This record gives sequence, C-alpha cells and structure tokens, in this order.
Amino acid sequence: MDEIYIGIIGFGTVGSGTFEILTKNEELIAQKVGARLKVKKIADLDITSDRGIDVPPNILTTDINEILNDDDITIVVELIGGSTVAFDIIKRALTSGKHVVTANKALLAERGASLYKTAAEHGTSLAFEASVGGAIPIIGALRTGLAGNRILSFKGILNGTSNYILSRMTSEGLPYEKVLAEATALGYAETPPDLDVEGYDTAHKVAVMASIIMGAPVEYGSIYREGITFISDEDIFYAKTLGYSIKLLGIARIEGRKIEAKVHPVMLPLEHILANVNDVFNAVYVEGDFSGPTLYYGKGAGRRPTASAVAADLLELGCTIRNCSKPVLPLTYRNESGQPIELISIYESCMPYYLRFSAVDSPGVLSKISGVLADNNISIYSVIQKGRNENAPVPIVMLTHEAREKDMRCALDIIDGMDFITEKTIMIRVDV
Amino acid sequence: MDEIYIGIIGFGTVGSGTFEILTKNEELIAQKVGARLKVKKIADLDITSDRGIDVPPNILTTDINEILNDDDITIVVELIGGSTVAFDIIKRALTSGKHVVTANKALLAERGASLYKTAAEHGTSLAFEASVGGAIPIIGALRTGLAGNRILSFKGILNGTSNYILSRMTSEGLPYEKVLAEATALGYAETPPDLDVEGYDTAHKVAVMASIIMGAPVEYGSIYREGITFISDEDIFYAKTLGYSIKLLGIARIEGRKIEAKVHPVMLPLEHILANVNDVFNAVYVEGDFSGPTLYYGKGAGRRPTASAVAADLLELGCTIRNCSKPVLPLTYRNESGQPIELISIYESCMPYYLRFSAVDSPGVLSKISGVLADNNISIYSVIQKGRNENAPVPIVMLTHEAREKDMRCALDIIDGMDFITEKTIMIRVDV
Repeated sequence: MDEIYIGIIGFGTVGSGTFEILTKNEELIAQKVGARLKVKKIADLDITSDRGIDVPPNILTTDINEILNDDDITIVVELIGGSTVAFDIIKRALTSGKHVVTANKALLAERGASLYKTAAEHGTSLAFEASVGGAIPIIGALRTGLAGNRILSFKGILNGTSNYILSRMTSEGLPYEKVLAEATALGYAETPPDLDVEGYDTAHKVAVMASIIMGAPVEYGSIYREGITFISDEDIFYAKTLGYSIKLLGIARIEGRKIEAKVHPVMLPLEHILANVNDVFNAVYVEGDFSGPTLYYGKGAGRRPTASAVAADLLELGCTIRNCSKPVLPLTYRNESGQPIELISIYESCMPYYLRFSAVDSPGVLSKISGVLADNNISIYSVIQKGRNENAPVPIVMLTHEAREKDMRCALDIIDGMDFITEKTIMIRVDV
Repeated sequence: MDEIYIGIIGFGTVGSGTFEILTKNEELIAQKVGARLKVKKIADLDITSDRGIDVPPNILTTDINEILNDDDITIVVELIGGSTVAFDIIKRALTSGKHVVTANKALLAERGASLYKTAAEHGTSLAFEASVGGAIPIIGALRTGLAGNRILSFKGILNGTSNYILSRMTSEGLPYEKVLAEATALGYAETPPDLDVEGYDTAHKVAVMASIIMGAPVEYGSIYREGITFISDEDIFYAKTLGYSIKLLGIARIEGRKIEAKVHPVMLPLEHILANVNDVFNAVYVEGDFSGPTLYYGKGAGRRPTASAVAADLLELGCTIRNCSKPVLPLTYRNESGQPIELISIYESCMPYYLRFSAVDSPGVLSKISGVLADNNISIYSVIQKGRNENAPVPIVMLTHEAREKDMRCALDIIDGMDFITEKTIMIRVDV
C-alpha cells in the first residue's frame, strides 16, 4: 500500500493525541484513504518528556527543517500555537507545495487571510477543522454538509472554560470567583484566564467561521467582544427565575455582504437546545436558508477530541492527494465579486435586554428609570423589584422588548449618572 | 463557466425543494463547485400540478429514459421512493456511469448492498446524505468529520413523527391516541402511521448508518424493533417524576466486527442533551474513540431541509467530477477482511429497566414480584407504589439496576402469568 508522509511540528497535548490516533487507528484510516498515513518526523524543542505514548525515538527532532525540507513529507501538521513562528512555518510549508493542517485559531483569526492566499496560489490546502470546537466537525458542516445553503446566522458556545464556569455558577449558585478558582484547580482555566473568560478565544473562532462563510476575511479586530467576568451569581439567579440560562456566545448574522459578528453573554430561554449545553461542552447552532436550524455539539478541547479533528483533515487530504487534482470543496472560496465584507456595528444590533439596576430605594426611582428608557424608544416587558431596604440599595431587574443597542447604551449612560443609582447597571442581551 | 447536468426523477416535495435550492442559490453553488449545476430534466408521472415554484415547462418529462439515456446528464437524483422501480433506476444510472443522489432510506436499508457494489464496480458514486436526518449532515460527519475514529456507538432520534407525539404527550400530559390524531391533522403523521410509530422508519435509518460505519451491510431485517404505541400518558408521567424523558431511539453499539443494532423507546435522563430534542426535530448522538460524544441536530424532514442535504451531495459530486479521479472519502469503504458483520442479539443487551406492573392490591404482591426478579439476577433500584384501592388493580412502578434482556424477559414471562397481575407489564429500557 502507498504511504503518505506527515510531519508534526509541536509535540504538546494535541501533537501527542494526533500521533496516538494515527497509530492506534492506522489500519482503519489506511483502509479509508487507500494509502497509509505515516508520521515521518515530529519536531519539538522538548523531545525528552514522557507523553504517555510510545514514539520511535528516531522520528523525534528539534529541527523543524528536517520536516520542512523533506520532500517526502506532503502534509505538515502545525501544532505549536502562537502567531509568529507558526505563521512562518505554515507559509514556508504551503509555498513549498506541502499541505498544512492546523488547530491554531488565533493565527487564522489574526493572519489567516495571507495564509489562505498563499495556499490558493500554490495549489496547496490549509485545513483547520481542529481550530473551532475541538471534536465537533463544524468546519466540515459549513464547508460541505450545508454547502448549498446561504448561511443566515450562527451562534456558538465556543469556549469550554467560560461554559464550565457559567454552568457551575448556575447549577451550584456559586459566585464567579469561587468557580474560577475551582476551574483553575481542575486545569480547565489558565492563569490569567483572560483569553477564555474575556471572550478573546471565542472571537478568534467567530473570525475563523465567519471568514469561511463569507468567503473573505472577516477582521478579528472588528468583532465586538464582551466577557463573562461581570456576571454575578445574582444575575444567574434572576435569569433562572425568568426561565433563562446565561451562556457566552459567539454570534454572526449575515445580510448579503454585510455581517454582524460579536461575542457576549446571552440569556437563552431554557427550552433552547443551546441552553442545555453544559460544562466544558461546546456547540454551534447554524441557520441556513434551506436547512433551517442545525446544531453541532461535542468536546471543544482536549488531547483526544482535538486529535479527532486533526485526523479528519489528514484523512481528507490523504484522499485528495491520491485522487484529486484540486481539493474537493476548497476550504475557502474566493470573494469573486471583490466586494469587501462590511461589518455591522454592535450599535445597530437589536435584541431584548436584561437590566439589573442598583438603586437607593426611594419613591419615584422606577418612574425615573422607565422615563429615560421610554425617551430612548425602549419599552419594558417585565419588572422584578424584590424586598425593601430603606437607605440601602435594592436591585431592580427588568426585561425589555427588542431595542437598538445604540438606544440602550444612551439610556444607560443617562441612568447611571442619576444620583439614586449606586452601581453601574448590569446589561445582558437576551435571545428570543 | 462549465456546466454539470443533473436529472431529477420524482418531482414531489423533496424534488421541488431540490430544484428550488439549485435555482435560488445557483450563483453561490457555482462559485463553490467551479461549475454550474444545471437541472436538465425532471421526470415525474405528474408534470402538471403546481409545485409553487417556476419551472421551465420544457425540462419536465414523464419519461425517465429522457434522463437515463441522456449522456450529458452526469448526476441522477432519485426521489420517487419505494424499493422496486427506484432500485432499477439507480442500478441503471450507476451502471451507465452516472452518479446518483438519493433520499431513499427504505431502499438503501433493504437493498443497498447491491447498489453500493454496483457503484464501486462502475467507479460511480451513490450519495445519500438526505436519507437520514433531513438537513442534518450526519452521513458527512460519519464519513469525514469523524473519519479517523473507531465509532463506538450512536443513538438517534430519527423519526420526527414519533418525537412529535412523545414530546406533546410529555408537555401536555395527553394520551397517545389524542396526540396521534393531532399529528395526523397537522400532516405530521400518515394514515396508517405504522411506518413511523412502529419504528420501521427509524430501523431503516439505523441500517443505513450502521452499514457505513461497519463498511459492510448490516441487515435491516435483523434489527430489533419496538414502537411507541404501547407508551401511555401514565408512563410519561412516571418517567417525568423520576427525572426522565421517553424518546424513540435508533441505537447501535459496535464491538469490533460485532454490532448491536436496535430501535425501541428509551427513558433518557433529563440532563442528557438528547432528552432536550423535542417536536419534529431529529438528533444523533455519536461516540468515537477519540472524539468522545458528539451530537448533530436539525429538522429531520420537510421540503427545504431535505433539499439542503440533497444539495450537499450534489455539490460534493460536482467538485468530484471536476477535480478527482475517484470520489474523495468514498461513501462506503469495503469490508476488506471479508469477515461478516455479526449482529448481537437484543437478548444479550444490558440496560436498566423501567417496569410498570398492574396488580391487584393484596398483601405479598411486591414480595412475589421482587422474588421473581431476584431469581433472574435483576436487582431493584427504586419502587413507586401509589395509592391503595382494594379490589381494583394498582400500578407498581420500578426502576431496576442494569440487567440482561434475556433475564428480564424470562422474569416478566413468569410475573405476567401470576394471578394477581391484571395487565401485561410495561417495560421501557433506561439510558444511564
């Protein structure tokens, strides 16, 4: 049987998982591809640590050139992360006629456009199923399963750490800091946790997905981003009471060549399938014009789930190398019209809102707040005002009807400046 | 731009949806394929009824030979259903070098092996994304996204009618007959509804999925099958009380070259993501050895969702025709070892059970029942015995620990023969 040679650069968690799946399922994979996928070299600065798997020592190297200069190697798997060295490695590999598989969402989000272009120019493929949603074949679904559809929108739980924290806050009624500490102890959160809990990681994944949907780069830096650190156990409690679950979502809504792309917490109705995605699981809800809503769910990170996605790309590339002159359903399609993608500003976004005001409990407060909201075209759907506590601030919780973000921000600026307001008002967008 | 010609045979619901998606999204599809997918002919016995879409009258024909004998047509879409004429059409198309797209699960389940063989012999493709789960790209996920995995199991809500009935029984507390009448009035259930509610349709889909996972035919007739008609509102009520939701599942569990494949109602814990799939939605939960659990959710039927799946196949075939000598990741892979697939009997299956006994309320009943269960290696997890009603039968509800089906059937045979039992005992398998 023919052999197709692979070089893995980066031998950390995902690198060792990738070697493991290719070894453990070698026969099954060879049968499907019609050729044997062989790891010829693995490059890493550290080639001595025990990864818990058997690796022939002669395939380990500290020199990436042993992979990049090896003409036998037709597929390079980049798993070192970061957006500088990884960029150079991928560019060099694609330019020299090698296909590349990567899990590097930060790199794709920030500098992907240039790499996609290089791949297209050299007739090579840059595959990245592992960059979004771990084991979930969401890139494949967008690229093939839903390919005949005009994608209208997606919303995804794309960061396991944030979802774990929000799920535990919801199920246990614990405050953010306590759950974060727990998540850190369990190895689910890094120190500092900003990349996850401030929504950067989710925004990277939104950029990757939005770009392949639009067929043109959607600029990562322009994606509106809000994290979960301001969400208190009090808000989780009120959300539950009102029949909602709070999730950090990466969202895109497409209107022709315009796209609204954003990351922020959302209150989802408990009946929504996404509201039932808990702990470290990820899920993406995608609407196509013919498919209607579809959902893809699974483990968003980890050695074996991510290796499953890397293997999917390797199998497809293996088949392509054997049977095709060009990749089947290219990973990106070119923006033939040349028309730029326009990002719709968050200020134009329209959603219902959850508001929690902290106000001194004195007569006329509710009337003043609702007056400002009315002046800004915001109408109230329901109000919860709990307890009375003279001289101490009380929470006033409101759900509004759909309102424009611009109007909402304007109203809250005014309200938060009023003398009876004791803390910045909490605002969470609501899914309908 | 090059054109690839398509012939559609069968112009019912899905046929017209297919024409619609190819017309409405023509540009987008052409851009992805790099060629224009053109419907050259549509054949149906009825070419006069209004389908609510504009079709040039000159492409309509009542003669399938105008498609099958047309050398320009490289892809035939078979949408007439049934397993006799459809079989002949597909066989003829594949033999004459045409690729075929079908949504016909009954045909694939019952006579698929012969068609896959014909396709392989003639270097043509038989694509069937639309045969399982409507818009859900589950065939694609098994074939590509999870391709590097050894699939360990799947369980799926694969029939919208049954799921609608069970969902409504659960949310409204209504009896089966009432909800079935409602579903029939809404057009969700056919008359007679047996294909759906007796699990035949689900079994067809299990056969299709199991065959592509095993890479060899899994005989439809050997799949154990039980429907939902025996489920009463009382059982739904007890399930809810115990923290479960009842769903009709198509299940497969793989052990090397052996497979357990079956269709029956299951009590799923409410926290299980599948328990939250309601109404006409379908979902499939798949476990791979590396991916871990993943779930795919969407509309399982209907004109537009099914057309979305047909279009996915057409796009992929379009790309294959343009760029490849062979299909990329073939739809089935051959059972190289030649070893037959062995079906594990339902009697060997091990699950916990829900039991509802109808017994005369007299002393010693519980002791006699539990004695028989104990004699058959079945241990009881919990018992609900509600109300007392001298001289009238009362329900005794039990959850057991995991037990072997063979033991359970043996125990129930004995128990149902006892003189204090007034009705056949209801048995529902429980997911853990």
